[in-house]
Amino acid sequence: MCEATAYIIKNGGEELLLADVDVIEPQDDGMVRLVSIYGEQKVLKAHIKSMSLVNHRVVLAQG
Amino acid sequence: MCEATAYIIKNGGEELLLADVDVIEPQDDGMVRLVSIYGEQKVLKAHIKSMSLVNHRVVLAQG
Repeated sequence: MCEATAYIIKNGGEELLLADVDVIEPQDDGMVRLVSIYGEQKVLKAHIKSMSLVNHRVVLAQG
Repeated sequence: MCEATAYIIKNGGEELLLADVDVIEPQDDGMVRLVSIYGEQKVLKAHIKSMSLVNHRVVLAQG
């Protein structure tokens, strides 16, 4: 499977935000919607900082 | 492998932008940098509209 793990940068470090992420959708209002392969959804004020699909990593930053 | 195919929305349809994408990095200046597993790089003025890692699809919109 090709889902990724999403992390968010907090206090200079990366914290786990959501595992097994399938869908990533930045919204027009500055929110990002993440949905895992299990249907778990998180919507938060953040932006995508970087991602590597080969490494299964998505890194978000707040705001 | 878990790379994805990147498309860009143009004239209401999706055009192939870059295949076998590994790295996706939105930049602070409104550009997005894509790098394929073969090292091919594209930088363009766009934003991520949606992606599904399970479906290996990344869709960008211009501007």
